Amino acid sequence: MATAVTEAAALRRALALAALGIGTTSPNPVVGCVVLDAAGETVGEGWHQRAGGPHAEVHALRAAGERARGGTALVTLEPCNHTGRTGPCAQALIDAGIARVVFAVGDPNPTATGGAHTLRAAGIDVEQGLLEAEAAEGNAAWLTSVRLGRPHVTWKYAATLDGRSAAADGTSRWITSAESRADVHRLRAECDAVVVGSGTQRADDPHLAVRGIEGATQPLRVVLDTNGTAVTPGARVLDDAAPTLIAVADDVTPAYEAVAYEAVETVRLPRAEGGLDIPALLDVLHARGVRSVLLEGGPTLAGAFVAAGAVDRVIGYLAPVLLGAGTAALTGGGITTLTEALRLDMSETVRIGPDLRITATLVAKEH
Amino acid sequence: MATAVTEAAALRRALALAALGIGTTSPNPVVGCVVLDAAGETVGEGWHQRAGGPHAEVHALRAAGERARGGTALVTLEPCNHTGRTGPCAQALIDAGIARVVFAVGDPNPTATGGAHTLRAAGIDVEQGLLEAEAAEGNAAWLTSVRLGRPHVTWKYAATLDGRSAAADGTSRWITSAESRADVHRLRAECDAVVVGSGTQRADDPHLAVRGIEGATQPLRVVLDTNGTAVTPGARVLDDAAPTLIAVADDVTPAYEAVAYEAVETVRLPRAEGGLDIPALLDVLHARGVRSVLLEGGPTLAGAFVAAGAVDRVIGYLAPVLLGAGTAALTGGGITTLTEALRLDMSETVRIGPDLRITATLVAKEH
Repeated sequence: MATAVTEAAALRRALALAALGIGTTSPNPVVGCVVLDAAGETVGEGWHQRAGGPHAEVHALRAAGERARGGTALVTLEPCNHTGRTGPCAQALIDAGIARVVFAVGDPNPTATGGAHTLRAAGIDVEQGLLEAEAAEGNAAWLTSVRLGRPHVTWKYAATLDGRSAAADGTSRWITSAESRADVHRLRAECDAVVVGSGTQRADDPHLAVRGIEGATQPLRVVLDTNGTAVTPGARVLDDAAPTLIAVADDVTPAYEAVAYEAVETVRLPRAEGGLDIPALLDVLHARGVRSVLLEGGPTLAGAFVAAGAVDRVIGYLAPVLLGAGTAALTGGGITTLTEALRLDMSETVRIGPDLRITATLVAKEH
Repeated sequence: MATAVTEAAALRRALALAALGIGTTSPNPVVGCVVLDAAGETVGEGWHQRAGGPHAEVHALRAAGERARGGTALVTLEPCNHTGRTGPCAQALIDAGIARVVFAVGDPNPTATGGAHTLRAAGIDVEQGLLEAEAAEGNAAWLTSVRLGRPHVTWKYAATLDGRSAAADGTSRWITSAESRADVHRLRAECDAVVVGSGTQRADDPHLAVRGIEGATQPLRVVLDTNGTAVTPGARVLDDAAPTLIAVADDVTPAYEAVAYEAVETVRLPRAEGGLDIPALLDVLHARGVRSVLLEGGPTLAGAFVAAGAVDRVIGYLAPVLLGAGTAALTGGGITTLTEALRLDMSETVRIGPDLRITATLVAKEH
């Protein structure tokens, strides 16, 4: 027998549904929706599954059918008010006879906003802000893109307890465990682009595609090869497992261009101190619809992003190992004294095999 | 109404009781005991509270009185068989009419062992090994001292997520939070000695006594001042808040000796590469009854202990901060390649205010 659920519980369920869309909805946000009937029983659930497909509200209303009349819709994001590839959700909710709409996060997108206004104008009871923080965290990539006009950036690193990502002799395979390395493939599948620098390209010849996750969307593989010398013909990122973008300085003719590769594009960017101009790279990625970037490079690349103020989240895989010498996980970044340090909030710690995965997010920025 | 408890639950309770003695029983082990009557109901509890005081079994048997007859005693450590400052516990259990004894860890101490044998010879049913790993962890300091003939060593450090313990300009106050710094006082109160090197002595003039914990036993403050120049008259460790031991090279006359300090002793040790001989220091501390050492110094001191194979446990306070430059948490240690790295097990992670406390213990050593 179905029983009435609280609105908070229903919205929490909608958040879980929304998360099912991570990795497949970009450049759209993830959205989940739960419809309760007039008696408070769940009669419909839905989530936005892929860009171009129906919105969460439409899925949930279809499932609810006539039972939606007089009911409540719990949505993780303000229902849209515009006709894009699909019709406006605000109108769909009105048409279905929904009496009350509760949503977690307002839509900051200037072309979509106003859903709440339209709903209220139709006499629907509208409430905003329930579970807002959780919902904003779940849509961090999309919200960052809308608010800052650049992709959300996660710096991922693997290090020892004393912060080393390689030993003094350069050995680094493997500091972290097979479980941690498998977990990184999940991170790749959740983001739109994976970025490395020329140092990692030279040292590791990485493949950067997602392996071992069925149905995963492959991220765009991005190599910052400032001088066009790190990616050479035969490099693993040049295969057709995923699309690849190679960024070189605007005065360079890269080595790999001697050979034609189908899925590989080259972009020329201005030089900056120590490499390429990071904001220019982010502009290019944003224009291509990239909403989330995973930095998988070494300490120098990460330092360049820190210096550019373009790290939103850090995911560290810490191995219970001490080295006492070797490469630091992060170098550069332009911070010389403690008061200038980049401060974050610990948001999650999870044991991954013998290692610890720490997620920390940037403390509320001025937008 | 009292109800029967399982032996495992009773022994787990005994482990919790044992832990109440941490910080006050050294040089003795911590021990907890629960006595169940013949029906399986708890009738007595006890723990070893301080060196020279009654053992856990005696406390528990006193509480149980006649109800111990035909009952079961759950003890975290094999009952002792020798008469030291108190009588042998094996005999006390026999005298009380206990029918069954379950203990977690065998006593490796050659002068105390044989309790199980004596109990069995008296017709008591004896079982060993229940919850052994947990009990060994709880008595790590004492077991290490008995087995290796040196104190158990915990290296405590505070660092950023990228493994820095100070910024490039030397600033380090405060990387971690007030909550983490308070937690360190608890660590100090639980150990017998706190050790720093000359670098920390010069940079911080630390006090090293326990503050803010009522009734805490003050640890021995130990400064490794190889050349006798770091501890100068007026140094905070020279006050009478706790005893202090200053180790200098055997060819040195230290600066502070110009002034007489009541609670301060000097010990002369052989020089070793980069400082003093660590095994010689541990010998001196062991001979003084020190069973547990907390390393609070900087990266060089920690590296010397790592190089000497004398780090048993690591407790890191990680702040959600990135620096990208500055002092590494650990330097030296003599490890140059990944296969030589010191490997530990993550044993605990706890949020301490905004920081994360990670405890890792050395992977099973060859004794």
